Amino acid sequence: MLIYTEEEIKKCVQMDKEVIQEVETAFTDLETKDVEMPPVMRVDIPENNGEVDIKTAYIPGYEMFALKVSSGFFNNYQLGLPSLGGLMILINALNGKPEALLFDNGYLTDVRTAAAGAVAAKHMANESVETVGVIGAGAQARYQLNALKHVRNFNEVNVFSRTQRRILEFKEEIEATLQVKVNILDSAELVVKNSELVITTTPATEPVIKHEWLHPGIHITAMGSDAEHKQELDSHILKNADVLVCDVISQCEVLGELRSAIEHKLIKTDRIKELGELTTGKYKGRQTRDDITVADLTGTGAQDTKIALYAYKKLTEKK
Amino acid sequence: MLIYTEEEIKKCVQMDKEVIQEVETAFTDLETKDVEMPPVMRVDIPENNGEVDIKTAYIPGYEMFALKVSSGFFNNYQLGLPSLGGLMILINALNGKPEALLFDNGYLTDVRTAAAGAVAAKHMANESVETVGVIGAGAQARYQLNALKHVRNFNEVNVFSRTQRRILEFKEEIEATLQVKVNILDSAELVVKNSELVITTTPATEPVIKHEWLHPGIHITAMGSDAEHKQELDSHILKNADVLVCDVISQCEVLGELRSAIEHKLIKTDRIKELGELTTGKYKGRQTRDDITVADLTGTGAQDTKIALYAYKKLTEKK
Repeated sequence: MLIYTEEEIKKCVQMDKEVIQEVETAFTDLETKDVEMPPVMRVDIPENNGEVDIKTAYIPGYEMFALKVSSGFFNNYQLGLPSLGGLMILINALNGKPEALLFDNGYLTDVRTAAAGAVAAKHMANESVETVGVIGAGAQARYQLNALKHVRNFNEVNVFSRTQRRILEFKEEIEATLQVKVNILDSAELVVKNSELVITTTPATEPVIKHEWLHPGIHITAMGSDAEHKQELDSHILKNADVLVCDVISQCEVLGELRSAIEHKLIKTDRIKELGELTTGKYKGRQTRDDITVADLTGTGAQDTKIALYAYKKLTEKK
Repeated sequence: MLIYTEEEIKKCVQMDKEVIQEVETAFTDLETKDVEMPPVMRVDIPENNGEVDIKTAYIPGYEMFALKVSSGFFNNYQLGLPSLGGLMILINALNGKPEALLFDNGYLTDVRTAAAGAVAAKHMANESVETVGVIGAGAQARYQLNALKHVRNFNEVNVFSRTQRRILEFKEEIEATLQVKVNILDSAELVVKNSELVITTTPATEPVIKHEWLHPGIHITAMGSDAEHKQELDSHILKNADVLVCDVISQCEVLGELRSAIEHKLIKTDRIKELGELTTGKYKGRQTRDDITVADLTGTGAQDTKIALYAYKKLTEKK
């Protein structure tokens, strides 16, 4: 079995158009192929404020598929350790043999998650987005903006974060890497009201965006909720959206923003599209400039298999 | 992360009383502790006659838990490869860090599965078992007999296998290692009628034992069924058993012998016990010499965590 470290993987896989294209095909595959993707497995360890998620998907036509283990242990800062971690195993689909261990500490998850945000924006946001808002200023907020820059040429970022501690660092980093102006705002409301596209990247368990803040033409990508207890959007946002797209409806019903909207009987799943229905061109993600569009992303095993296969290709080419 | 090979693991972990004791405590833990054990995750790859199962369980009080990946690819013999494979990852329960990779190719699964059979027999079979029957003559049949020998001092084995090709090899090996006489019989019926304890170790999808073959006092352990399409016992055996025990009822309802019995409305789960209810002494696995007792074992993540922790202890002691 081949084993690769985070450092080796980071050298081979960066956020670029090629990665976004790979992740886009994961959604197309979910729509067009008979992908075997069991529900997410989760182990909760409440006494240590920790959780481990396992995701996987076999996509017919590829010689390997990924099994991903990702961990979030939210007391780790007290131990001087990062909260998030993980690894991926690539398994041979012909004979079951584990072929490679990608010991990426969650890097590939960060990349494929942000790439999915860019895919949603590409198909749903207005072409002319100049101002992007982001709620949360952690690693995933940075990855999302980096990915988005490949599909929308924005020049201004509005950011709000409840934890202010690293927001100046965020501003400096984004201004330097993306050549955009970053405005630190005092509330999520100001961010939403002043941005054409908003990305939520928080672990919130109560809505951080209210529906009355929305304006015509806005696109929202909510990628924070990936568990039964998380929620970033007021459910009326989903109810009133002109276009509502999930990465996978059956998964968003349980883990995503959709869960609460369904619980409150605000929405039926028959009017929701899956992202693969946009990437294949079956449906348009936006009909008019003024449509309000919302993407609910929980992260899929198909993305993990795609990014792992891409990393494997790059890593073995290099040798 | 520490990485251990099958060879290293086999040197440290053999089938013995200590291993059986470890696996017994897994069942006690399932009964007495708030074990976090999500349903089994499965990826089917029908075009390659393959499946990958993922099992896990966090047992409070232990510093690590195992995530096990096991594969069965049943065309592998055409490739000159073993059908079964697998590995275990030990994850730190305090911070989520992967601590060790046990690259055991399924060895620890074989051991913990057979050990569970011995635990069931210890609590359910008559003390004086002299003749043991086994249906199937593969690796797991050997492991089961090896484990059983530690809890019941039998001196004769009756075996039937549909595939005759390695049955002489089986006879020689068991006779040499366990100092018992092995009789190769012509049918499962003859095995059942002439044995006090019977273990089924097949991947059968249709019953291989009929209820009319049973006699008073027999104990049956069915360990072959671990998937929705498998079944080794005629469901009337479960219906008529004086004592029916599952490793975990919720898992056997989906993956075990219990599935078919419930589908045919032959049994209600309220009269079934879990193995942990016997290992803790809450219930007796047998009331009288003539009771017919049946154990339905599907294999649990708790056993995987226990055997992985035991292997880790042995492997790191050695260094």
